[in-house]
Amino acid sequence: MNRKATVGVDVGGTNTAIGIVDALGNVLAKDNIDTPSHGDIAQYITDLSNAIKALIKSVQLVNSEIVVLGIGVGAPNGNYYNGTIEYAPNLSFRGIVHFVSLLKEKFPDMEYVALTNDANAAAIGEMIYGGAKDMKNFVMYTLGTGVGSGLVVNGDLVYGADGFAGECGHTTLIPGGRSCGCGAKGHLEAYCSAPGMRRTAFEIMVRDNATDSMLADKSFKELSSKMIYDAAVKGDKVALEVFEQTGKWLGQGLADTVHHLSPEAVFLFGGPTAAGDYIFKPTKESMEAHLLPIFKGKIKILPSQLNPGDAAIVGASALVWKEMEK
Amino acid sequence: MNRKATVGVDVGGTNTAIGIVDALGNVLAKDNIDTPSHGDIAQYITDLSNAIKALIKSVQLVNSEIVVLGIGVGAPNGNYYNGTIEYAPNLSFRGIVHFVSLLKEKFPDMEYVALTNDANAAAIGEMIYGGAKDMKNFVMYTLGTGVGSGLVVNGDLVYGADGFAGECGHTTLIPGGRSCGCGAKGHLEAYCSAPGMRRTAFEIMVRDNATDSMLADKSFKELSSKMIYDAAVKGDKVALEVFEQTGKWLGQGLADTVHHLSPEAVFLFGGPTAAGDYIFKPTKESMEAHLLPIFKGKIKILPSQLNPGDAAIVGASALVWKEMEK
Repeated sequence: MNRKATVGVDVGGTNTAIGIVDALGNVLAKDNIDTPSHGDIAQYITDLSNAIKALIKSVQLVNSEIVVLGIGVGAPNGNYYNGTIEYAPNLSFRGIVHFVSLLKEKFPDMEYVALTNDANAAAIGEMIYGGAKDMKNFVMYTLGTGVGSGLVVNGDLVYGADGFAGECGHTTLIPGGRSCGCGAKGHLEAYCSAPGMRRTAFEIMVRDNATDSMLADKSFKELSSKMIYDAAVKGDKVALEVFEQTGKWLGQGLADTVHHLSPEAVFLFGGPTAAGDYIFKPTKESMEAHLLPIFKGKIKILPSQLNPGDAAIVGASALVWKEMEK
Repeated sequence: MNRKATVGVDVGGTNTAIGIVDALGNVLAKDNIDTPSHGDIAQYITDLSNAIKALIKSVQLVNSEIVVLGIGVGAPNGNYYNGTIEYAPNLSFRGIVHFVSLLKEKFPDMEYVALTNDANAAAIGEMIYGGAKDMKNFVMYTLGTGVGSGLVVNGDLVYGADGFAGECGHTTLIPGGRSCGCGAKGHLEAYCSAPGMRRTAFEIMVRDNATDSMLADKSFKELSSKMIYDAAVKGDKVALEVFEQTGKWLGQGLADTVHHLSPEAVFLFGGPTAAGDYIFKPTKESMEAHLLPIFKGKIKILPSQLNPGDAAIVGASALVWKEMEK
């Protein structure tokens, strides 16, 4: 019996991760190449293709029955409709990159090559391999350097008119509030991302002049959400309040999404979710407080079931299975 | 050649409107009955069915070739999946009313009987007969006593996991802000509905002690959005600021919806939209200011193309055509 697998590629700012993933979401083999800083897309596609081909070869040497069905790519500012990466601020490639066409030239026999953004890939990964297997309507929020989201309605990812739907990190949480990386003010991402939590920690230390906090000996640049978590576990008041406040903000944003889409569940993914109840509990309480009575008590907030280390490539690989359903 | 038509029923708090609508959205005949205050659903369904039957008869007397294909119902708290009206605060029927089943008992030969809430019906009406005929992804906001919304993704209305999706009027605009009818604080509906505009007018008069405003001789109870519009046309400063401010708020809310769904257009429907540029211009400016660069300049804000007088029954009737597509 042959064993079907797909390739998942995660294009990050400095590193591109590649994996061969089986139908259950197990990573059979993985590799990394640099995402170039030189902006030479042709060279990068050649390097990436060679790395993918070598990786396919390596798994087939172990098991000659493995058949690779397609390549799924997760990339910042990835546009599913056009197979393009468009004006990604953290990549060295300028303008619009026709990623899927370029990759198809290197894999003329590969039937399925598709691309989407990283948060959408995470949502599809959750649907194909993870906790959303039996759900037709759910939402994925990814908390990290930014806040991304992927929305699923009637079993399909929402791409919208131009392929860029699901930018819930850029909904307005506090009118006129903190500056957001996108140039606007008060967006959810400025509060609920890992850097948002750092801003909150310093905001609280400033307000309380909290020189006794465990976080008070860290520079603004070095303070991470992991450090805030470690301090919260040890009972640090500032750190505990950061989680309380982040949950309040996130819950408000999730309620807005629930009022749009009436999902069965909201999945949370990313570094800050490792804090468990510290973040889930206040988020749930705040979401409930903001919901209409018809939604209260109905919407689950769940941790992603994808393995954090592999989620990006696993999510990207899931895109191929989703394509095959069509 | 026979002429196909559908029945649209709009269940309002005190009045139920019924219309026979042709495939182009023309109302061939219409009638009204009281929505009862006595809560007797069996009697109401009997009265409604008799009125529908009489109306069908009347159009068939004029043109014997008219064939009625189904009945579409728009109702507050209408649940499409269950065909129910659930805990509608402004209706006298308590709890969950199995409206579609009850109506089908009276029309055993009618293949299509379906129900949704009024804002969803307006969105479907726009898609079948109105300005969204060629759109697969758009959003409808209805501004009136409340703010409703209907969301269309890939050509289908979004109902979500439980049938109640599209409650954008209850997204949070101002954290901790004005009390909303639903019990929460700061929801968009408390700012952008007609009563929200009244609150804004008085808020401005209070701030400026504006006894010279044309709105200053109206009681809090009697001031309507139409009066605010009439005063704005005459150059009243308070009234003009109400529209500016309402547009700012509405644009912020629309941007949140755009960031979720990436629609091709947002349609606005309802009394306050009659003010044209007074409301559309600041709304557009504010939406643009809140959008990510990838969305800027792309999203149209359009007035609904449905005739305001008939939109509720026309929208409800469109539900039948949508059902027939399935």
